Amino acid sequence: MSELPTRPAPDPFFASRWVPRPEHVTEGDPTVLPSGFRAAGVACGIKGSGALDLALLVSDVAGTVSAARFTRSGVLAAPVLICQERCRLDGLRAVVANSGNANAATGGRGLDAAAKIQGAAAFAARVSPDQVATASTGVIGVQLDDGAVARGLADAARTLRPEGGIELAEAIRTTDAFAKRASLDVALPGGTVRLCAQAKGAGMIQPGFATLLCFLETDAELAAETADLLLGVTCRRSFERVSVDGQLSTNDTVLLFASGASGVRVDPESEDELRLGEALDALMRQLALQVVIDGEGAARVGRVVVRGGTLEGVEAVARGVANSPLVKTALHGGDPNWGRVAQAIGHALPGTAPLPFDVDIEGVAVCRAGNAVGFDAAALARAVQREEVEYVIDLPGTGAAETECFFSDLGHGYVTINADYTT
Amino acid sequence: MSELPTRPAPDPFFASRWVPRPEHVTEGDPTVLPSGFRAAGVACGIKGSGALDLALLVSDVAGTVSAARFTRSGVLAAPVLICQERCRLDGLRAVVANSGNANAATGGRGLDAAAKIQGAAAFAARVSPDQVATASTGVIGVQLDDGAVARGLADAARTLRPEGGIELAEAIRTTDAFAKRASLDVALPGGTVRLCAQAKGAGMIQPGFATLLCFLETDAELAAETADLLLGVTCRRSFERVSVDGQLSTNDTVLLFASGASGVRVDPESEDELRLGEALDALMRQLALQVVIDGEGAARVGRVVVRGGTLEGVEAVARGVANSPLVKTALHGGDPNWGRVAQAIGHALPGTAPLPFDVDIEGVAVCRAGNAVGFDAAALARAVQREEVEYVIDLPGTGAAETECFFSDLGHGYVTINADYTT
Repeated sequence: MSELPTRPAPDPFFASRWVPRPEHVTEGDPTVLPSGFRAAGVACGIKGSGALDLALLVSDVAGTVSAARFTRSGVLAAPVLICQERCRLDGLRAVVANSGNANAATGGRGLDAAAKIQGAAAFAARVSPDQVATASTGVIGVQLDDGAVARGLADAARTLRPEGGIELAEAIRTTDAFAKRASLDVALPGGTVRLCAQAKGAGMIQPGFATLLCFLETDAELAAETADLLLGVTCRRSFERVSVDGQLSTNDTVLLFASGASGVRVDPESEDELRLGEALDALMRQLALQVVIDGEGAARVGRVVVRGGTLEGVEAVARGVANSPLVKTALHGGDPNWGRVAQAIGHALPGTAPLPFDVDIEGVAVCRAGNAVGFDAAALARAVQREEVEYVIDLPGTGAAETECFFSDLGHGYVTINADYTT
Repeated sequence: MSELPTRPAPDPFFASRWVPRPEHVTEGDPTVLPSGFRAAGVACGIKGSGALDLALLVSDVAGTVSAARFTRSGVLAAPVLICQERCRLDGLRAVVANSGNANAATGGRGLDAAAKIQGAAAFAARVSPDQVATASTGVIGVQLDDGAVARGLADAARTLRPEGGIELAEAIRTTDAFAKRASLDVALPGGTVRLCAQAKGAGMIQPGFATLLCFLETDAELAAETADLLLGVTCRRSFERVSVDGQLSTNDTVLLFASGASGVRVDPESEDELRLGEALDALMRQLALQVVIDGEGAARVGRVVVRGGTLEGVEAVARGVANSPLVKTALHGGDPNWGRVAQAIGHALPGTAPLPFDVDIEGVAVCRAGNAVGFDAAALARAVQREEVEYVIDLPGTGAAETECFFSDLGHGYVTINADYTT
């Protein structure tokens, strides 16, 4: 079996036209976490390759606040259950995360393992167990060796450092072609704060499934309610708007930590909150796009915007287009085959014919009121060969709903990773 | 661009363990349609390759009855609209079908073209226009040359013959690797009748979309209500239970014609009706399986059976597993990765955790009450390398709902056909 593909991360971080860098945001020293945070990444033997597979993130500040979001799957991995049932999610001080094993569909034994790992990490981080979130990513249905993780945590505790975000981002990778992390300095009226993140996925995992993990740290001083509000809004505009293959994971976990160590206070409904929110929004949207770009060694990223009618309608159409293997293979092939978009719209809205929808691809009108219109085929063919392709769909009706979805193409790389790399 | 792949049709027709041949059914002379029917297939120039692309099927019996089913898409192709709005669907005498162009999203001009084709076919078949169904398959959003079709219909009218089912099945192919047709003799208590069918799809079409067309002919004597009842029941157990890529087409059309020319009368609720229904059921299930087998030059076919709980639940899980690109790539790779089945179940039933479901693959128990169980990995690995792989999922709860779905794998052939063959 050959190695999984790797490639460099997009540089600069704000590489997409769809996520402009906010004016008050600059890319900071990428090696240093916000004040109050230390991290480590070690190899504890879960991955047979000997690569980094265990990460620990700790805030040394007692008053750290946090917020969390998890998958809605009906099959929840043990670490997600531990978070939901045994953590103070608004007062987390640490997260322990492993790659190479999802600890999902592993029953009571898997739950015991996750609880032991939480306890060991609490000891390593010198905090209470209910302040330690647990996260896993990898193959489903295989028991996780908690002894190996506990031994690894001893190493991690010894190597925690402010520059450890680098190893953390490495240690949560599975089939990710590049580590996903960012370090931003955000100029607020009250002073400058740092905002960092490490993420993985939604590449195909140990050939398993699409899991998203994202850990966010800031030294801004926030109320837990503010952290929760900001994370909820920005999750909905970022990770909840992307699809690699339409498959909800058992392990998705997004955590935001705010240490307050900068001394810059962010009050509700203040200009500081607005600017921090903008920075968090841009950071998470660009990270979500990195996940899409890396989905399967994708050649291109699509963005579909759907407007008009009801919220249910625009959501169904956006998901239908984004998850259509026909649209995705056309995107991969650089094929301006808009008939597949029309097919996906009809599929998403059964029983509504005749449906007078409009479609534009990269600003070129290809369909009006449900009917083909003449267009410059050569110009469109060139446009869909670029790295980012935008589809805008207007639905008929009096509603003014609007949504978007970012999606990766479907190419041979997806099949190779998920079929040819067998367990 | 290289040629699309072709291969021989499965032989014998009843090749799957999932569709046993009913005892009273034998494979008949494959070249002869049931009494009263003639067909033709010609090349009229829609396909640039010069291959057959226009088919005409005619019943010469005035009292012929029929039944029809169509796609539920919100974007209906012009030929479907013509059928629904301008045909006596219980008294059809003919169908005209072209490949290479779906005549979908083509507006008023496309509707005019389909109406002209209906008129020309009525003239060729010497029946009334409202007795002629229209069907198309191919690329969406391109105007259909009705003049070329009308000229082709003159050729077709001259070459109509009882053996023409062969050309008909050829002329409706697009990316199908083999022509799909069957000819069965069905021994009823009242005498033997013939039952034939020609189908195409759901291979990817002119790289466009998955369309299913199926035309069924019998010389049994039925009431139109009986034909409609039988077609409804058998469609629900065949074409409505398969998926290549989860994509509903704009053009799906299934038509059943009964000429009555055998003189064997099939009365409602008679033993004749039961046996004819069994034969039709087996025929359509095996044809539906041929469509799945041919979906994308697939290596393997999966069958997922879901039992327990509500009808909505089993349907969501069956579709979720059948359409999961992760399950489909694992099937392609011959990978017994049941964790992907667990992921798809959780995705299909959000918010239900913890969900104590059971999974068996090829009779091997791999998951009980939501948890991994030990199994003979080597035996399972061998089992999932076969051409047919069966997944049985039991959901918790007091309900006794049950459903099934047949699905193709997802391999490089799918990507090649849909991405590399650009328009």
